[in-house]
Amino acid sequence: MALITSKEYLESVKKLKPRVYVGGKWITGLLDNPVTKSMVMANAAIYDLAQMPEHQGVMVAKSHLTGEPINRNLNVATNIHDLDMRQEMALLTSQTVGTCNYRCVGCDALNALASTTWEMDQALGTKYNERFKNWLKMAQSKDLAVSGAITDAKGDRRKRPTQQDEQDVYLHLVEKRDDGIVVRGYKVSQSGAIGAHETLVLPGGGLKDDEGAFALSFAVPNGSPGLTYICQYNAYSAEREYFGDEIEEIGNPIYGQRETSTMVFDNVFIPWERVFMCGETKYAGRLVTRFAKAHRMNCGGACKVGFADVIIGGTMLAAEYIGVEKVPHIQEKIIDMVRLSETSHACAIAAAMRGREEPKGSGVFLPDDLFGNAAKLNIAHGFWEIIKNAGDIGGGLVVTMPRLKDLKDPEVGPTLKKVFGAAAPAEKRLKVAKFLQHWAAGLHGAGTWHGAGAPQTQRFMFTVLTDFDKKKKMAKKLMGMEEDEAPKAAAKK
Amino acid sequence: MALITSKEYLESVKKLKPRVYVGGKWITGLLDNPVTKSMVMANAAIYDLAQMPEHQGVMVAKSHLTGEPINRNLNVATNIHDLDMRQEMALLTSQTVGTCNYRCVGCDALNALASTTWEMDQALGTKYNERFKNWLKMAQSKDLAVSGAITDAKGDRRKRPTQQDEQDVYLHLVEKRDDGIVVRGYKVSQSGAIGAHETLVLPGGGLKDDEGAFALSFAVPNGSPGLTYICQYNAYSAEREYFGDEIEEIGNPIYGQRETSTMVFDNVFIPWERVFMCGETKYAGRLVTRFAKAHRMNCGGACKVGFADVIIGGTMLAAEYIGVEKVPHIQEKIIDMVRLSETSHACAIAAAMRGREEPKGSGVFLPDDLFGNAAKLNIAHGFWEIIKNAGDIGGGLVVTMPRLKDLKDPEVGPTLKKVFGAAAPAEKRLKVAKFLQHWAAGLHGAGTWHGAGAPQTQRFMFTVLTDFDKKKKMAKKLMGMEEDEAPKAAAKK
Amino acid sequence: MALITSKEYLESVKKLKPRVYVGGKWITGLLDNPVTKSMVMANAAIYDLAQMPEHQGVMVAKSHLTGEPINRNLNVATNIHDLDMRQEMALLTSQTVGTCNYRCVGCDALNALASTTWEMDQALGTKYNERFKNWLKMAQSKDLAVSGAITDAKGDRRKRPTQQDEQDVYLHLVEKRDDGIVVRGYKVSQSGAIGAHETLVLPGGGLKDDEGAFALSFAVPNGSPGLTYICQYNAYSAEREYFGDEIEEIGNPIYGQRETSTMVFDNVFIPWERVFMCGETKYAGRLVTRFAKAHRMNCGGACKVGFADVIIGGTMLAAEYIGVEKVPHIQEKIIDMVRLSETSHACAIAAAMRGREEPKGSGVFLPDDLFGNAAKLNIAHGFWEIIKNAGDIGGGLVVTMPRLKDLKDPEVGPTLKKVFGAAAPAEKRLKVAKFLQHWAAGLHGAGTWHGAGAPQTQRFMFTVLTDFDKKKKMAKKLMGMEEDEAPKAAAKK
Amino acid sequence: MALITSKEYLESVKKLKPRVYVGGKWITGLLDNPVTKSMVMANAAIYDLAQMPEHQGVMVAKSHLTGEPINRNLNVATNIHDLDMRQEMALLTSQTVGTCNYRCVGCDALNALASTTWEMDQALGTKYNERFKNWLKMAQSKDLAVSGAITDAKGDRRKRPTQQDEQDVYLHLVEKRDDGIVVRGYKVSQSGAIGAHETLVLPGGGLKDDEGAFALSFAVPNGSPGLTYICQYNAYSAEREYFGDEIEEIGNPIYGQRETSTMVFDNVFIPWERVFMCGETKYAGRLVTRFAKAHRMNCGGACKVGFADVIIGGTMLAAEYIGVEKVPHIQEKIIDMVRLSETSHACAIAAAMRGREEPKGSGVFLPDDLFGNAAKLNIAHGFWEIIKNAGDIGGGLVVTMPRLKDLKDPEVGPTLKKVFGAAAPAEKRLKVAKFLQHWAAGLHGAGTWHGAGAPQTQRFMFTVLTDFDKKKKMAKKLMGMEEDEAPKAAAKK
Repeated sequence: MALITSKEYLESVKKLKPRVYVGGKWITGLLDNPVTKSMVMANAAIYDLAQMPEHQGVMVAKSHLTGEPINRNLNVATNIHDLDMRQEMALLTSQTVGTCNYRCVGCDALNALASTTWEMDQALGTKYNERFKNWLKMAQSKDLAVSGAITDAKGDRRKRPTQQDEQDVYLHLVEKRDDGIVVRGYKVSQSGAIGAHETLVLPGGGLKDDEGAFALSFAVPNGSPGLTYICQYNAYSAEREYFGDEIEEIGNPIYGQRETSTMVFDNVFIPWERVFMCGETKYAGRLVTRFAKAHRMNCGGACKVGFADVIIGGTMLAAEYIGVEKVPHIQEKIIDMVRLSETSHACAIAAAMRGREEPKGSGVFLPDDLFGNAAKLNIAHGFWEIIKNAGDIGGGLVVTMPRLKDLKDPEVGPTLKKVFGAAAPAEKRLKVAKFLQHWAAGLHGAGTWHGAGAPQTQRFMFTVLTDFDKKKKMAKKLMGMEEDEAPKAAAKK
Repeated sequence: MALITSKEYLESVKKLKPRVYVGGKWITGLLDNPVTKSMVMANAAIYDLAQMPEHQGVMVAKSHLTGEPINRNLNVATNIHDLDMRQEMALLTSQTVGTCNYRCVGCDALNALASTTWEMDQALGTKYNERFKNWLKMAQSKDLAVSGAITDAKGDRRKRPTQQDEQDVYLHLVEKRDDGIVVRGYKVSQSGAIGAHETLVLPGGGLKDDEGAFALSFAVPNGSPGLTYICQYNAYSAEREYFGDEIEEIGNPIYGQRETSTMVFDNVFIPWERVFMCGETKYAGRLVTRFAKAHRMNCGGACKVGFADVIIGGTMLAAEYIGVEKVPHIQEKIIDMVRLSETSHACAIAAAMRGREEPKGSGVFLPDDLFGNAAKLNIAHGFWEIIKNAGDIGGGLVVTMPRLKDLKDPEVGPTLKKVFGAAAPAEKRLKVAKFLQHWAAGLHGAGTWHGAGAPQTQRFMFTVLTDFDKKKKMAKKLMGMEEDEAPKAAAKK
Repeated sequence: MALITSKEYLESVKKLKPRVYVGGKWITGLLDNPVTKSMVMANAAIYDLAQMPEHQGVMVAKSHLTGEPINRNLNVATNIHDLDMRQEMALLTSQTVGTCNYRCVGCDALNALASTTWEMDQALGTKYNERFKNWLKMAQSKDLAVSGAITDAKGDRRKRPTQQDEQDVYLHLVEKRDDGIVVRGYKVSQSGAIGAHETLVLPGGGLKDDEGAFALSFAVPNGSPGLTYICQYNAYSAEREYFGDEIEEIGNPIYGQRETSTMVFDNVFIPWERVFMCGETKYAGRLVTRFAKAHRMNCGGACKVGFADVIIGGTMLAAEYIGVEKVPHIQEKIIDMVRLSETSHACAIAAAMRGREEPKGSGVFLPDDLFGNAAKLNIAHGFWEIIKNAGDIGGGLVVTMPRLKDLKDPEVGPTLKKVFGAAAPAEKRLKVAKFLQHWAAGLHGAGTWHGAGAPQTQRFMFTVLTDFDKKKKMAKKLMGMEEDEAPKAAAKK
Repeated sequence: MALITSKEYLESVKKLKPRVYVGGKWITGLLDNPVTKSMVMANAAIYDLAQMPEHQGVMVAKSHLTGEPINRNLNVATNIHDLDMRQEMALLTSQTVGTCNYRCVGCDALNALASTTWEMDQALGTKYNERFKNWLKMAQSKDLAVSGAITDAKGDRRKRPTQQDEQDVYLHLVEKRDDGIVVRGYKVSQSGAIGAHETLVLPGGGLKDDEGAFALSFAVPNGSPGLTYICQYNAYSAEREYFGDEIEEIGNPIYGQRETSTMVFDNVFIPWERVFMCGETKYAGRLVTRFAKAHRMNCGGACKVGFADVIIGGTMLAAEYIGVEKVPHIQEKIIDMVRLSETSHACAIAAAMRGREEPKGSGVFLPDDLFGNAAKLNIAHGFWEIIKNAGDIGGGLVVTMPRLKDLKDPEVGPTLKKVFGAAAPAEKRLKVAKFLQHWAAGLHGAGTWHGAGAPQTQRFMFTVLTDFDKKKKMAKKLMGMEEDEAPKAAAKK
């Protein structure tokens, strides 16, 4: 059966033995540490969604390989509708967990691979596509959680991979063997890799001819020998450890902030049947670009829109709880929050609707780049506006509140209830203030910049993707300006 | 044959005898005055587009009444694809004429009427829909240019229509007769009414029960007795008169700025077969809302995007002509212009794609409101950013340039050619500066605010259309906050 | 001697016995808890500044009461230069501690009191000014740290103080006695009250005639019977507890985030010589407005500018450490950060320079309101732009980094050094990423909205303070439009 | 007598015999052409202001050369107060004429010359300063209108002056003679040169060693042999010609839009006593930078603020005339208009207040650069926001209105009065709509970008002027990060 329950997922997680370091400790199990547990619980909630009848249309797809129902996180889009449901899934999962769908990057990676391995095989006579399809069938049949790893550590940005003092800052090939390859290096900012059954690894960007050692793509199982995850640690990690099981004290109690890690590949062996690119530098940029194309639509135009939805909801509650929800300037700010998020959602829908088969014959559909980049770029800025407004309407309380449990303290609790009671009881006001603190004083602002690539990469894509010649011609025609003589003369000959 | 040529249109215009006042003069014919002529030429260009093989998909539709090919400006959308092509038409026409498709408002008005007359007939047993369909068949068969009239003069905004000192500031019923009705009042800011064969008149907004005299919709032919058009007049009108036939001296030489007029109805008689609403106040707001829904998608997310395209094209040329097109900050500004316009286009596409039949059973498809309002609201602000950047990159020349023909002056011409020569000859630089002047120091900035309704009306719609309860519930669920007890208790019983 | 050293301040703090609750614990001493200690250390640093020869001009003033040199935090401005140095002090302290000068609110409060008590005495024959001057002389002679308490808990915002279900949400009079008054209620979001020797209490806003019980102003010593401080607690509090003495692991190691508390007045007795307003409702609004006038200049146009300076500095370092500091788009973003902060600083300077004696005869100088409000309003928005850019340039690392001390871990440390080494060693990159995390994912964004009042209050002041009649007259004169006839006729008589 | 009346100025203008070309015609006298007349009338109004007792403080200064009262437009600032009054003058003149004070550029040019000629003489032993002072005494004694010419035609922006195909695109030296120099070339976008008695010419930017021919500064009298002015011509020029003497039909009836011309120097002879730089390339950049420093404060932070004042006034009237001035969103937009303009004014005040003697010993005071650049950059963007809001609140009428005089037309007038009557008579509504059209669909938006240099030049100055090292040090100190070892080691030696 290709769709597993959250319970089955949690069982499977207990069997994983990744080497995970969090804040000075090596974890014994992903569910034993409050930080790593929050990440796993978010994954579990995504499995749950696929079981709910009302979400089947969004969460469940039909495998183009087997015809079986599969979790959309493992689906290769083969038409416009698939693309549309893909971005709707990103919206739904964000509305549901208020953090990453940690299978999201993996999903976009496998679409990029489906397209590019097909293209490589066509052009080079390789067998990557077949391998990839076999791997995908396996993943679909077990409903695996798959994460995606793209971002290299990158070192000094002025230098190419081969010029770095420290070679490992880009993941690279160490050895080619009969049975597979050995790789080493670092992938940073890896969302949810620790709780995924597998990770799809892609190159971090376009490559030049002499950079073949970095043109690598493969699937690596969690717990592979030589693979270590060193987790992020920040104030919100400390807070979660501080409260331990009292998760109701946390802004996003169950699912938490976005948890990432650095994946350290220390001579990890990958058998050939899991290798989907090895040295084909010409296709590295193409593979990453296709990933980005998919991911910007989803990350920018849907995932963050789902975050915005819950932030808007929380902000409305904060306004109601002090009795100001009808004040004109409050309403104007709420309107802006809605406008900004719906605008990015529109970009995602347009990206899906103007999607197309790429490359022709592959059967794989990818979203339109221009609208996908617009989605990401708009929300990169818009999200800060949204949390800014949440911080405005939420009030100083958002950052000056005591602990929620202080309300239950026998000494100060009764007083605090009086202090913070308003149009709603103090418990509600502080609860929603804590929720808004999670967003307006949390990790997602800065995180939004960089998920799916820094904003400048999206800006750059506008230069690449816009047909400026067409626009110039239209302007010239309107002006009654003749096309340049030179080309005309040339044409005469 | 249901598609006429621009030549046939121009012939038909010569037969029109509207009573038109422009800048102190009563025109003898629409083609005899340089201002009114520019408006007519824009219409002619739209007729041309429908004849071009490459634009058939966008410009030509199949009549849902007769199955015949018709100009899309006369089409009632009966599916998603129709909505999508409708907004693509708005894009194409703006790219082509750089001013109004003057049949645009009429097109959106007839879609609103197709939907609302059907609904009235269903509920009230009236015959409006049949009348409307007969009129539409006639219009389609002759490929008429139809404008739409919505905006009343409105007088004192603090007062309802019945409270105004001057009743005529809202178009109203004077008399009901056996053969028809007599109406009087003013519709202002009417784009292209002077050159349309017919105008569809709608109420200006929602109405209360006692405001039946204002709940009027009908089709009125150009040149109807009692109907007068008093045209706008501004610096750009003066400039066109100044240059007369030398239209190449004008920023948008053939099609000009957007030309509007005040339509004065002085006891105009409308036979019953052309009346589509008369007193049904309950449906007035609905009719206008449906019009707005269609128009905001088109006006905001496509028409202005087409303007942006030619402005971007012109701005790129201006940069190239002085050799700065590769300077980073110039490129960044161009990127912003593209981002802003494509974002609004995405909103239009999303509005079309999330369109739906309204009301159920009518067969009429209308775009999604939220995305349509987002399209308009984004471009209302974005368009100013776009012309601001055009003014920045275009340079001081945009407002300090001499006449284009001064370049040909025997005395100053040779000097001016040297003064303004750069990476391109002075002729090109000044030509494109004049083009940008048309936009950055012209009427379209302020015009963009108010076409399809002032921005505040779109903002208000976000409040109406957003499902805030859903968002609040999602936030509460994430927080682990219980739904309010009261409803629960109620549910128990 | 009127200027004490930081050492003397720290000694004096050890003698304080406030009743302080932080995250479930009652502290034994302000220096014994890492959270409260950070606040005290910030105060100590401000005392240090006043000892440094290079900062005498800014930090030291001459008492208008005694002629003695005093810390500027205790100075009443009696001329333009004082106002200018006052805002420069706010800049300098923020640059130095990267958090509140916790004596800042107290300083602005005492200026408002100097002005308003003088005015009350003139009009009402009261003795408030004399009392206040006596108290101030004492405070100046001991160089006391004085905080200011304005913001009431406020409860339901739709209700006036007397209408609240819970009276204590506004601080109010309980009893007038021969020797003084008894007060109760809550002041929330009190920056640095726990570490101040005294707190100046002001009403929270304007009051109506029947709200005399809330028209209260007085000085209350730290540790007064009945006075309790319940501290804020958030992720950053947990992080500080987590790291304890390892403060180098914290974003702002010594001085931390801004620490606030709720001050609970449970029938606190205030002797008459410390009471500066008691029932004079008419002057309550004036007192608060004068406080706001001073505080908006300092908080908006100088304090946050100092924050911006260190954020810009940190962001430049982050860019250098990966080798991108010369990339054009990075430079453009830095430029915007500078522009935004310097713009607000300009508003503060203008506010000081256009300051004036208020009321006439009082000898007290207050800044110009319009420019002060502009300072605050601009930075309220600008600060989010600044931290947004810091998050952009800082990179994903800002939120995905591990602990700093993980670099020293024998197992993962060597690897992490390789992972994060770039154009600078990993230690430096992570150190500055941690610093930017403190800002871009910290409390100051939301805090900036509400310090010196929510932005809407500043917006409202523009309506109050702008001379619209003058502007209308200027426009009319330019247009050649006559002034309205009515006034003219009236003038004739 | 050093202060002349507007009447005396107008008399003097009649004696000028400049060679001026406007829209195909050579003018016979500046007062004979409606376009050139509007420019002269603006100058006359500035002369009037200096005669009004209430404006003496702003408009009249004391000559630092003679001690006599002079028009501030001819004053060299020798202290902070002078700088402050200088920017206040820019505010006042804009509020009064709603267009250029055409003596403004000349004023800033003479301050830059006072500073730089002094410096050159000190360093090089030249006599420029003495010559300049003699010329200035003469100008002050006759109260001359002096314009300033900086912007060269510039040709291909990728090439230096010497590399241009057409040498004349930069003004340059043709011949050095015993009695003076001969110059040729073009200065473009010259505001008010046609109506000035003299023009101070400066180089257009910094120069390299081999560009001595372009390092020129001198004073040239109106009507000099070889000097021709070719005026701008646009829709607003056409409109003014169209209405001729009926100036009340124009948006800014008397003073009009900003009028500029290209100054063509065709081997113009300048005697040595009027030459203030000739070949000293090293000082060219300095001279221009000092000019810019002064001009950005005035142009950005005061002139455009005065425009904003009358636009805000007009916008308020427009709102009142239809009865919406109390609607919350209207008020919010007005608030933003005020905030934006007052913010730039604050920057000007700060620039004046932080001004300083430059170079030391010269006695000449120049404003602070950073705040001056902030003033200009903020208003460059803010002004578009302001006219955008004027266009929003002004309504569609701003661009769809008929001629004002159509209200008096016997046929359509009575109807139009009814159409456009609201909370005020149609006459008032249309008058103010015309006024707003002048701004929101006029030349000042694009003009604002480029006056005092394109915005990018101001952005660039932030990079130059900001002490980034100081900011980095402050950040490092806060972080507890050590200064780099290398410098430390160096310090040891």
